[in-house]
Amino acid sequence: MSYIEDLGKRAKITESAIRSLSTERKNAALNAMAKSLKANKELILAENKKDLENAEKIGLSGAFAERLTLTSERIDSIAASITEVAGLADPVGEIIGGGESSYGFNIVKRRVPLGVVGVIYESRPNVTADAAALCLKSGNVCILRGGTDAINSNKCITGLLRGALMEIGISPDCIMLVEDTSRAAATEMMKLNEYIDVLIPRGGAGLIDSVIKNSTVPVIQTGAGNCHLFIDECADVQMAIKVADNSKTQRPSVCNSIETLLVHKNTAEISLKKLAEIWEGKVRIFGDKETAKIIPVEREATEEDFYKEYNDLCVAVKIVGSVEEAIEHINKYGTRHSECILTQNYENARKFQQEVDAAAVYVNASTRFSDGNVFGLGAEIGISNQKLHARGPLGLRELTSYKYLIYGNGQIRT
Amino acid sequence: MSYIEDLGKRAKITESAIRSLSTERKNAALNAMAKSLKANKELILAENKKDLENAEKIGLSGAFAERLTLTSERIDSIAASITEVAGLADPVGEIIGGGESSYGFNIVKRRVPLGVVGVIYESRPNVTADAAALCLKSGNVCILRGGTDAINSNKCITGLLRGALMEIGISPDCIMLVEDTSRAAATEMMKLNEYIDVLIPRGGAGLIDSVIKNSTVPVIQTGAGNCHLFIDECADVQMAIKVADNSKTQRPSVCNSIETLLVHKNTAEISLKKLAEIWEGKVRIFGDKETAKIIPVEREATEEDFYKEYNDLCVAVKIVGSVEEAIEHINKYGTRHSECILTQNYENARKFQQEVDAAAVYVNASTRFSDGNVFGLGAEIGISNQKLHARGPLGLRELTSYKYLIYGNGQIRT
Repeated sequence: MSYIEDLGKRAKITESAIRSLSTERKNAALNAMAKSLKANKELILAENKKDLENAEKIGLSGAFAERLTLTSERIDSIAASITEVAGLADPVGEIIGGGESSYGFNIVKRRVPLGVVGVIYESRPNVTADAAALCLKSGNVCILRGGTDAINSNKCITGLLRGALMEIGISPDCIMLVEDTSRAAATEMMKLNEYIDVLIPRGGAGLIDSVIKNSTVPVIQTGAGNCHLFIDECADVQMAIKVADNSKTQRPSVCNSIETLLVHKNTAEISLKKLAEIWEGKVRIFGDKETAKIIPVEREATEEDFYKEYNDLCVAVKIVGSVEEAIEHINKYGTRHSECILTQNYENARKFQQEVDAAAVYVNASTRFSDGNVFGLGAEIGISNQKLHARGPLGLRELTSYKYLIYGNGQIRT
Repeated sequence: MSYIEDLGKRAKITESAIRSLSTERKNAALNAMAKSLKANKELILAENKKDLENAEKIGLSGAFAERLTLTSERIDSIAASITEVAGLADPVGEIIGGGESSYGFNIVKRRVPLGVVGVIYESRPNVTADAAALCLKSGNVCILRGGTDAINSNKCITGLLRGALMEIGISPDCIMLVEDTSRAAATEMMKLNEYIDVLIPRGGAGLIDSVIKNSTVPVIQTGAGNCHLFIDECADVQMAIKVADNSKTQRPSVCNSIETLLVHKNTAEISLKKLAEIWEGKVRIFGDKETAKIIPVEREATEEDFYKEYNDLCVAVKIVGSVEEAIEHINKYGTRHSECILTQNYENARKFQQEVDAAAVYVNASTRFSDGNVFGLGAEIGISNQKLHARGPLGLRELTSYKYLIYGNGQIRT
């Protein structure tokens, strides 16, 4: 039996124990987990330092090192997130349907955990604790496969979390870390249908593509956010500029920020000039030919730009002739994440929300609001941009399935 | 552009037109579809005859030919199913969540179609009409890929359905048939992520395995039903025998029939002897060593038997020492479909329903009840035995996703 198979088998065995844990015990475990991380900051920081030194040796720095870095404050914030999950409602056991059947038996549709959840992610060690907490609260065993670069931090964090579980008398195998961070091990994980019920990739487009291509285990895609904001000819220009700027610049590195700005030709002159002023020296603008006639652009926006998620202070700008053209552009290039129209025209708003195919479709509000807290789900394990199972933010409920329980007294089918 | 890519592209283009169709127009289309099938029986039967002749030529007969055969009555029944779908509630547009956010905007979580649904199935031409009707009612475009052996029947049926759509003024491309039934075309379909939102394989274990292994498009697994019935020591023996017999023999070819009978050792003597009497000359019994001590068995049940879905009048029998052992066996060999315990003991019933991991877990009622009608979903496109997206019968709601609509007036994130 391979290392990964062994992990999977242990996870599956543990599943039946965690599935039925009471909310109280799960919350006690979560609080113990948070406490342990706060009590062992020195240890975590020392292990994280090893990762940072290794990263430096192989020339990784800048944004990458920033994501990998833990600080005392960041550990506090990770612990606070875990405590927050303890405070969320437990989805397991919720009755979501059923009734008395004409056949004389009762049917109850009850929410149950998914089982074993695999999470494949990159170099952010906070994902380790976040994913573990959300999976535990939703009654799932998790198998966490973080990036090679964060292996020391991840070993330390999962070691502490597992210790906290043991303290509460819960099997530590509820939280499993894949310590073999080779690509071969990850690929094996993607084929472990017997033991893993669902795989959630969290990371860049490359990681997600690889999981979709290689996984035979069912996948929930998350992450890629090529989001758009369309300033309609009927927009309130002041509002449009404020919302466009917020959607682009408030936190450009995350998936719910916009990458392409679409502007109706009849408002382009005024809207674009104002935005160009605000963005001067701050946001790099790539524009189509029509845009370049109105404002200075760094270079022409290519087809490739329209497909790109910059995750940075860059924006592609295109001038369109109608709301229909904007919708067509979005449905072609978008990743079905968050899309926004700025308009005061009722019919254009309605049409945009109806026809744009995305998890979240905004009228007159920043795309930056797409997250689990705002949408009332509490914490989130990612934002799904697929249509199967769950769309948009993935909270505790989205980490569950359901089963039908039938209470009969001898009914047979005739 | 390949043939399959072209189909996919046309399907995606059609999607936006069908997504917003009113319930009234969809129902009108469904009624026209049913009417057209009934009005063109001769034509359908003639094309079906070609398929049957071809099947005979290559030596296919028996159960296979039976599934492929259409008759006047079967066409009536197919048409009746379509009319029934017209009578079901339209899931599209249903509001399933949302509210006023503390940020001052409103969020509405609205049910929307999945988009383009691919269905890969085998030789039953009734699936063609069923799948087309359910996809249309749920606002989805379908791409149907039936078996080579049914191609003439399928071409004829889809031709008539498409004609009925045109009559109502709806794009016929809502219902697409893959006329190239080569394996290569099917494999291409499984990789068509750009145009197909979800793939539903319907058929035997081989087909489903192949789709799971090869598909990069998200899949809803259906079909495989290695179901069990466990007669607990505390069972009402009369009831147990009646329900076990019904679960095995009422319609052995379908997925919700049982394949393995588990019997508690303390009731084996009496229960098994009675069942053996009823099943003598009718059901082939493969039993473990303990079973063979009590009743005559055709041969010993092997490990392979316990994994097998006979879909026939065969049953594997195993004697177990406890409800725990029964649960362990089911969770090891079962396909997470429908499982049943016969018991009058409250705690054993509770434990079984809690710990057996399956879409439907029965106490004292036949597993044969697992279907969309009984569970209150109306017609079904299959029975899912995976945990992601939907479990158990897949009705109209299970053919939908949702989107969040946000109604703001200039909110930005700070």
